Amino acid sequence: EVSFDPKEHQHLRYNPLRDTWVLVSAHRMKRPWAGQVEKPPEEHVPRHDPSNPLCPGNTRANGEVNPDYDSTFLFENDFPALQPDAPDPGSDQHPLFQSKAARGVCKVMCFHPWSDVTLPLMKKQEVVKVIDKWAELVEELGTTYPWVQIFENKGAMMGCSNPHPHCQVWASNFLPNEPSLSDRCQRAYYQKHGEPLLLQYARQEAEKKERVVVESSDWLAVVPYWATWPYQTLLLPRRHVLRINDLTTEERGGLADIMKRLLTKYDNLFEISFPYSMGWHGAPTGPSLKEDNSHWQLHAHYYPPLLRSATVKKFMVGYEMLAQDQRDLTPEQAAEKLRNLPEEHFKTRGH
Amino acid sequence: EVSFDPKEHQHLRYNPLRDTWVLVSAHRMKRPWAGQVEKPPEEHVPRHDPSNPLCPGNTRANGEVNPDYDSTFLFENDFPALQPDAPDPGSDQHPLFQSKAARGVCKVMCFHPWSDVTLPLMKKQEVVKVIDKWAELVEELGTTYPWVQIFENKGAMMGCSNPHPHCQVWASNFLPNEPSLSDRCQRAYYQKHGEPLLLQYARQEAEKKERVVVESSDWLAVVPYWATWPYQTLLLPRRHVLRINDLTTEERGGLADIMKRLLTKYDNLFEISFPYSMGWHGAPTGPSLKEDNSHWQLHAHYYPPLLRSATVKKFMVGYEMLAQDQRDLTPEQAAEKLRNLPEEHFKTRGH
Ligand SMILES: O=P(O)(O)O[C@H]1O[C@H](CO)[C@@H](O)[C@H](O)[C@H]1O
Ligand SMILES: O=P(O)(O)O[C@H]1O[C@H](CO)[C@@H](O)[C@H](O)[C@H]1O
Repeated sequence: EVSFDPKEHQHLRYNPLRDTWVLVSAHRMKRPWAGQVEKPPEEHVPRHDPSNPLCPGNTRANGEVNPDYDSTFLFENDFPALQPDAPDPGSDQHPLFQSKAARGVCKVMCFHPWSDVTLPLMKKQEVVKVIDKWAELVEELGTTYPWVQIFENKGAMMGCSNPHPHCQVWASNFLPNEPSLSDRCQRAYYQKHGEPLLLQYARQEAEKKERVVVESSDWLAVVPYWATWPYQTLLLPRRHVLRINDLTTEERGGLADIMKRLLTKYDNLFEISFPYSMGWHGAPTGPSLKEDNSHWQLHAHYYPPLLRSATVKKFMVGYEMLAQDQRDLTPEQAAEKLRNLPEEHFKTRGH
Repeated sequence: EVSFDPKEHQHLRYNPLRDTWVLVSAHRMKRPWAGQVEKPPEEHVPRHDPSNPLCPGNTRANGEVNPDYDSTFLFENDFPALQPDAPDPGSDQHPLFQSKAARGVCKVMCFHPWSDVTLPLMKKQEVVKVIDKWAELVEELGTTYPWVQIFENKGAMMGCSNPHPHCQVWASNFLPNEPSLSDRCQRAYYQKHGEPLLLQYARQEAEKKERVVVESSDWLAVVPYWATWPYQTLLLPRRHVLRINDLTTEERGGLADIMKRLLTKYDNLFEISFPYSMGWHGAPTGPSLKEDNSHWQLHAHYYPPLLRSATVKKFMVGYEMLAQDQRDLTPEQAAEKLRNLPEEHFKTRGH
């Protein structure tokens, strides 16, 4: 009998945050790739582009002029998917044709006045400003909205249409599918095991080490045991923290540090500005502020599309869409690769 | 008070097959697109390429020589994600680190000996051969495997690395996430309403008409009320059919017809060979063959990535990955566009 080797033998792994399974078939990395190749990310972005609507002093689609900002800059999305005042679809509600009102706001936040920097290349104090703004937005929008989704689409490969460093914040009057599933899973785990799922998980991973990418006294970033994207990571505090606005000043400094370290490794992997979509999940807000949310633990998910190189991504297509996610290298292999990369950014090396 | 208009006002729609919601914000089509543009699909594919491992008579990666086939051609995937004999990962099973054995087979099926045809351009009788082979595979592999996933990744945009017309069939010793969710939803609906979900749905859609793309006496293709991809469709028989191998000879002919009509419209939309991932869902097999699966109805999902043109796709990224799927035109708008397209293929028009 051959003994089981996760790098050689396909198997399923369970994602306790989503109650789903992923098929891990690491031997698939051996197949040659003759498919689509992506354009590598733009290498030389000008610091200020007079035609870029996100730069300081420029005019946006709706005619508004951006201030001459020198830190973060927040504005309403000019083409919002959620608006505060959409009418209710009403209720001729056959069970197969159900609709519901959707209301909310969509904001855009520039990280920095310059277009040619990204989070790993920004100064720690500049990243802290971004974190403070995230916390402020969750605090403010969370007073009424049950969910405030902070997310960053980075790189053209991830549908990002503007190279200027920025993220988005969409707040809604409903709890979206993903956080709703994660809420259910964390609650059930807490009820059964008496401890928050992600607190227990972080402790285990900090001991096991094999999936850790970067860690500090108060933060941990791992390639989760159940990762679907090749270099997916999960970033979370070691202390029990419900929401991003609950982070102390010290923890925000620590977060800026670990984000810079993680994202530098990402950039160093293929020596490009690494594309990804990322976002924060914390305990629901609005009406939930009055409820017990001890089962929650604040965390960020990073979902990078690349698999083999700067230009070959993982396609989550037929089998993945119709049946189940499949990955081509083990999370341990991905973590090891990232962990062994230098913490100095390839663009500033030797400077 | 403004009255609700689905084309103007964002709202949520419920997907009863997955128990999830989609955010429909049709007004988002107004935003200009400055993001990534895809390479349009290859226009001139040679009929026979001596270096293409899928063509008749050519040698594949493992040294095997393809027969000089003149209809469909089936072989084992040379880099399978599932193999019949992988060892069991064993069970040191902490609830946060659960794994399971995954076993199965991965097959590839060429639709036709020529590389320069696709299903809509094939003769009806040639498409029937493909359907017969699908049915045969579900019959055969389904005797032991609980799930047989037939899927087609079409176009480089969908990770397809070979222009030769083909699909894949992955059979597994487990019920994957998506069919498992769909099984749960259809079962609950049947228990509550006493009729299969999709049978009731098809009847309603055939009456309402607004989401119908093509129909015949025994088949129906609609842009489902809960579609997430811009031009997503759902194809299903009108009769209660559990699995593809239960289709009668007549229904197989009808299926070949309606597939040709649907896929011709897809190609005509942007006058390109339209990319998509598609796959069949029917009642589970293996041990389930002995159980009552009356809640199931056979259907195919088509998930095409394009949104605005032959080169601008919908990016399912930050908000979609972290929170909830969002679409930019209503399913009714998409259905109307497809419905109004000619049923003659743009490549053969005027011939
Ligand atoms: O099997 P192929 O065509 O080599 O690979 C393609 O389809 C698979 C199944 O959907 C995916 O896992 C791969 O990411 C994709 O590139
Ligand atoms: O809002 P943007 O950057 O224009 O758009 C991008 O992010 C959105 C939220 O993830 C997606 O719905 C769009 O498909 C994507 O292109």
